Formats: sequence, structure tokens, C-alpha cells
Amino acid sequence: MTLPEVIPAEALDSTDLLGLWPILSEDERVAAFRLLDRDEAYRFLRALSTRDEAKLLLSLPASELDSSVRLLAPDDAADVIQETQEELRPVLMGAMDENSRREVKALLAYAEDAAGGLMNPRYARLRPDMTVDEAVAYLRKQSRESVETIYSQFVIDEAQHLIGVVSFRDLFTAPRDAKVRDIMRTEVLSVRDDQDQESVSRLFAKHNLMAIPVVDAENRIKGVVTFDDIVDVVQEEATEDIHKFGGTESLDAPYMESALVPMLRKRAGWLAALFLGELLTATAMAFFEEEIARAVVLALFVPLIISSGGNSGSQASTLVIRAMALGEVKLRDWWRVMQRELLTGFLLGSMLGTIGFFRIVIWQFVRPIYGEHYLLVALTVFTSLIGVVMFGTLAGSLLPFLLRALRFDPASASAPFVATLVDVTGLVIYFSVASLLMAGTLL
Amino acid sequence: MTLPEVIPAEALDSTDLLGLWPILSEDERVAAFRLLDRDEAYRFLRALSTRDEAKLLLSLPASELDSSVRLLAPDDAADVIQETQEELRPVLMGAMDENSRREVKALLAYAEDAAGGLMNPRYARLRPDMTVDEAVAYLRKQSRESVETIYSQFVIDEAQHLIGVVSFRDLFTAPRDAKVRDIMRTEVLSVRDDQDQESVSRLFAKHNLMAIPVVDAENRIKGVVTFDDIVDVVQEEATEDIHKFGGTESLDAPYMESALVPMLRKRAGWLAALFLGELLTATAMAFFEEEIARAVVLALFVPLIISSGGNSGSQASTLVIRAMALGEVKLRDWWRVMQRELLTGFLLGSMLGTIGFFRIVIWQFVRPIYGEHYLLVALTVFTSLIGVVMFGTLAGSLLPFLLRALRFDPASASAPFVATLVDVTGLVIYFSVASLLMAGTLL
Repeated sequence: MTLPEVIPAEALDSTDLLGLWPILSEDERVAAFRLLDRDEAYRFLRALSTRDEAKLLLSLPASELDSSVRLLAPDDAADVIQETQEELRPVLMGAMDENSRREVKALLAYAEDAAGGLMNPRYARLRPDMTVDEAVAYLRKQSRESVETIYSQFVIDEAQHLIGVVSFRDLFTAPRDAKVRDIMRTEVLSVRDDQDQESVSRLFAKHNLMAIPVVDAENRIKGVVTFDDIVDVVQEEATEDIHKFGGTESLDAPYMESALVPMLRKRAGWLAALFLGELLTATAMAFFEEEIARAVVLALFVPLIISSGGNSGSQASTLVIRAMALGEVKLRDWWRVMQRELLTGFLLGSMLGTIGFFRIVIWQFVRPIYGEHYLLVALTVFTSLIGVVMFGTLAGSLLPFLLRALRFDPASASAPFVATLVDVTGLVIYFSVASLLMAGTLL
Repeated sequence: MTLPEVIPAEALDSTDLLGLWPILSEDERVAAFRLLDRDEAYRFLRALSTRDEAKLLLSLPASELDSSVRLLAPDDAADVIQETQEELRPVLMGAMDENSRREVKALLAYAEDAAGGLMNPRYARLRPDMTVDEAVAYLRKQSRESVETIYSQFVIDEAQHLIGVVSFRDLFTAPRDAKVRDIMRTEVLSVRDDQDQESVSRLFAKHNLMAIPVVDAENRIKGVVTFDDIVDVVQEEATEDIHKFGGTESLDAPYMESALVPMLRKRAGWLAALFLGELLTATAMAFFEEEIARAVVLALFVPLIISSGGNSGSQASTLVIRAMALGEVKLRDWWRVMQRELLTGFLLGSMLGTIGFFRIVIWQFVRPIYGEHYLLVALTVFTSLIGVVMFGTLAGSLLPFLLRALRFDPASASAPFVATLVDVTGLVIYFSVASLLMAGTLL
């Protein structure tokens, strides 16, 4: 498919091209991008994903690289550089003007997931002694030169300290000769440049922000984080958490674009670790080998028992981890969560135990495979299920607290991790209950 | 703790109150809110969560309810109504003015997760034949009357059809006597009022939008969805997906605030369904009871084998489901995903199989518990692991496609669900491999 079949080249704009992008070949992408005028190219690059931006820029002829790279805001340029292989970075850095290169280098010095790594170092700054009319005239000039955020204006003193904020609406509704000092809000929410992006995104959600200023330890303004960066952060953090839940390291690239070997490496690590944990089940089972030999019927319910513990544990850990990520549950709540989950585990375990009990008793009438002591077997399954589900719920809900207290990411208490932990304990609970209840009869 | 201990009442503003909110009692909350002036109360309500808004408003004395309810934008008011018990809704509806009540009723008619349920029906509308100066004067007036979004202005014809969009920056940088018609962009992204909120949020992320107009089937503008609603949508959808992954229905309220019984009900449903599935493992095991009786050593590795299948399946389904939610993987990609996961499963299974093989062989030298045929046991475990992990990976990656093709939510292919499916099959694979390899020796 060539471009002209779809849309006349002279009418192509950034929105069309974004729609066509996924179905175009590399060459067609470059050709189509070069058809856009400066304004449309700017809009287009803003909307393109960082990965695609990096690929596109590096495919452009050298003569056009400079002008395209200069369309990028410094924070986007820094993201593109980070996405680029080490050896190709100088090409992109070389295409920037002196000023941008300095800004980008400063941004690259921040951790990728810190507020400083998200912020745009260009923003509209006002002086407190400007009048509203002067401020508007100044902003009118600024907005032509692509200062990204003209929606919040920060008021700073001579030493770059942040002293207030003025919104467009404030400027609009104030008398024209009022001073900025008199209409600015002085209670300004701001974040530190080394603050984690997840806590920044929580602040955005909590206060419905559009932009937040980033300051250093001395309250000097360094840049601004805007809502469009935050939508990406929220997606990214959710993806990371979801991948951890599934017991895999997060991929750095979209699934279909990840090369096989790095993906294998990320999955193999967790899988091997879980496998080593599960090897303990073989050890536990060997410990009860005699019991199994004497009452083979016990072996039949092993998968049922341990999976019930795993499932209830995975439920509990999922609920607690997500609640922690959203800030609904704090470290100090562990005691209340534990009480709650103990009761929940008891009730859920009793429910599953009852189902299991009747399954065995009823089955015995249909096909008597559980022998004369089938009631004892059913009772063992009933009791074990209560114990195993309670342990699963407890382990699943408390593990995230433990991980957080030890300063690990609570999301690592993934479903598979909890299941592995509960499997080994579940076996011990099951065979201990059996030994108690069946001593003298089956065992 | 009373308020004055923390902060002088006369200096209290919306930001302070948001910070204090979690530690205040119900009564203190009402008292503190009543200290805010109109502007600060407006800011505060915008930032408060819908649940807390509803609770607060219903605790206010009747004399103050009207003025507070009238601070809400219609879309927020509709959310609050939805959060309120049926029998208390008339109280809130009665506190609105006639116009708002009509708007809120129209919004409530939309599904909660449709664009129409998210949108604000108030927005700035311009006529194509206004001049820039007229448009700015008009917006200046509008912005005093709390039209929520003055950041994108929509241009409409006499029949309310959406014909263009103008940004503040466009107005700012255009000559004052230009016509809106000449500076507006006519390629306008819009969403239909019945469109799902998840697809709206993907559009926001893709195009870095600040606001998007909502139109009906005839392209008549009905309202506008703004970025702050979208941050909430992204969080909400991620939470739903994460809960499904953990094998539980999503809670309607934060974890700590959910009452025990509704939470139990949501967890019990999934847990019981998974348990009924797992009961099939008892049936499968009973089918192989004779083999177990003859070679008890086989039972020792049952938990190891089935959990490996479950873990690899949960990895695969997590990666595929998240990629689908982000739009990275489409239904038509199933064939490529399958090829990829078959190869991945083979390689991961071989890795785990190798670890398992050597674990058995080496252990045999330390403590000879696996009998004279230990090499045969090790070979059975090795081969079964390859088969089980391949099956797990395949089932985990294809199940989301199947669910989507059948128009179910792919996220229902949760880790516990996949694990249950793989457990039963894993047992069959394991014992079949054992029958083949051990015929004539152990079996």
C-alpha cells in the first residue's frame, strides 16, 4: 500500500499520519513524515511514542535531522536519547542547538523515574511586580516560541525561588492593571526533583492537577511536569505492577516488538526462582512418603489442597498490593488487614471445605473409590482446607507489608510467588491434619 | 485532635484540608469544610474523591447543602448521585438549580463507563464568524462563570454540529481581527457519546490530548471529556484488570472501606468456581491411583510439575492481556503469538526440566530416596516439565484471544484461572509420560 492510495499527499496532516502509522513500512513512514509542514510535524512528534520517535529520527536524511530534532521539547528529546543505543546518541545530541543540548544533558542526569526526569525545563515565568497586562503580553510572546505550558504560570523571585502560581483563568478575570503579586496563589503544590514519579502521579490524581512545578532542595524552580506526562506514568506503573503480578519482570518494549532473547531472560529468571522454591514441595512430599504409601488416597487431594491455598493467597495479595499502590492502605494498617484477612480466610476456607466434604461423600455413593474410611478422608480435606486457605490469605495479605517494610516493592508478592510459598506450607498442614485424624485407622 | 491544633482556622485552604482529610473525624471534616470560602470550597470539592464528596454533602446542614451542591460541575454532580444510595438521591437532586438538574439527569442516562457518562455538558462554544477579539472577550466572560474547560474551544454551526476547534494558543498568536473560521483546525478528533471509556483513554494517551469533544450520531456536540477525568479512568481500568488477574471480582470501594460481606461475596464467587475446577484434579488423580500405588515416588513431584505449568501460564497470560489492554496486540496477531509462545515454552520448559533432572540425580547421591530407577524418574520429570510448561504457555497466551473473540473480557484469563486449567492437563501429561517411560520397570 502506498500513501497516495489512502490520502492525497498535500492534504496529509498529523492526525491522518498517526492513524496510518501502524500499517506503513519504515520507508513509507519517513516519506510521509517529510510531507508534513513544520507545525504539523511538531504536533505529530508530540503524539508519537518515544520508541517510534527515536526510530523515525534516526532514519531521516542528515539534512533534515537537525530541524526535526529541534522540534522536540527538551524532556521529549531526553526520552528519545534514553531510548537510543549508546553509539547512536551522539548523532542526535549533535543535531540539537547548544542550549537544548545543555538542557537535555541536565535532564539525563536525573533518574528516569524521578520527577526531574519527567519535567520540561522550559516554562512560563512571571515576576511578582508585573501587571496583568504585562504578563499577558509576555505570555503572548512566549506562546509563539513553544514554551510547552502556558496553562500555569509560575511566579519567581530574583533567585529563581518559586513564590506563587497564576492560572490563565486568574489572569483573564483580573483587572488589567492589577499586579501579579496580588492575584497569585502563594500556597503552591510542588514536587522535589528527586521525588519518585509514582508519588507525583498520585498527587496529580488527588488534586486534579494540570501541571506541577519541580523544585530543588532550596525551592528553586527547575521545570514543570504536565498532565500528559502523567497519563503515561500511570499506564507505565500499572503495566509494571501487572507484569510483576503475573510473575515476570516487566518488558522494556511492547510485547510484539520484544526480541526473543531479552524476553526469555526476563521470564526465565522469575520462573527459575519459583521453580527452586517449588522444589521444596518435592522435599516436603518425600518427608510424607510413608504416609502416602500407606494411604494413597491422600495423594489424590494434594493438587486440590495446595491450589486452594494459592488461589486465596493470590486474591489477598492482589487486593492489598493494589490498595497500597493507590495509597488506600498504609504500612500502619497491617494489624487491621491481618484481623480482617484471618476472618475472611476462615469463612472462605469453611466454604471450600464444605464443598470438598460433600464432593467426597456424594462421590463415594456414585463410585466407592475412597474406601471404608471415606468420612475420615472427607473430614481431613475439610479441616485442611480451612487451615490452608487461612494460611494463604494471611501470607498473601501480610507479605506485601513485609516487603514494603523492608523497602522492596510490595508488587513483588505476585500471585505465583505467594502460591509457591503457600504450596509448601499447604502440604505440611494437609499431612499433619491427616496424621492427627487418621492415626490408628488409615495411618 | 481538633483542627486548631494543626492549623489556624482562618488560614485554612483547600490544599491544607486535603492533606488533613484522612486524619479528621466525620464531624471535624464538616466543620473544617464550612470554614472554606466559596473559591476554596470549589477547588476542594473538585479534588475530593467522589465517595468522600457524597459523604460530605449529605452531612452538611440543609441550609448549606444547596450552595455546596451548586459548586459541582454537572459531570461531578452526576458521579456523586451515582455514588449515593437510591433513597438519598432526591435530597441532592433537590438542592440543584433547574438547569443543572436537567443536565445531570441527561448524564445519568448514559452508561457509567461510556464517554457520555464522563463528559461535562458545559464547554466554551464559538461561532465560526466571530473575530479573535470577540472570541477572547466572550471567553473572558465565560471563564468567570466556571465553564470548566476554557483550554479548548469548540466551533459549532447553528445546528450544534462540531465544525472546528481552536486552542487558547491559537487565539493568542492570531491577529486580533482574524475570523475564528480562518484559524480553527477542521480536523477534529471526537468521540461518540456511547463509546467505551477505555478506548477514550487510549485516544488521550495516543494524541496527548487535554480535552476531547463528545458528539452524538449526527456529529452534534454534547459535551467535553477533559484530561483529569481520564487520569481517573486509567487508574480505575488498571485496578479492575489487576483485580481480575488476582482471581477476584473488583471491589467497588477502597479495600479498607469495603464492608466484609460484599467483599466476601466477590471473593467467594471466583474462589468457589476455581475450586470446582480444581476438583477435576482429584478425579484425574483417582484415574492414576494405581500408578501412584505402584510407584509412590511419582506422587512426590506432582506439586512441582503442576505449579510449573501454572506459573508459566500465568506469565504468558499476563503479558498478552496487558498488551491487549494497551492496544499493542490485536486479535489478528494470535498466530504470531502462538508461534512465539510455543518456542518460548519449549525453551523455558527445557530449562526447568534440566534443573529438575539434576536436582533428582544429585539428591540421589546425597540421600538415595528415589530407588534404583532414579534416572528414569529424573527423565520423566524432565520430559513432563517440557510438555507441561509448553502447554501452560500456550494455554495462557491463547486463552485471552479466545475470550476476546467470544466478546468476553480477556483479563478474565487470570493467573488462578489459567493455573487451574493447566493443573488438570498437567497431571494427565505427567502420568502419561510416566506410563510411557516406566512401562516394564516401575509401572
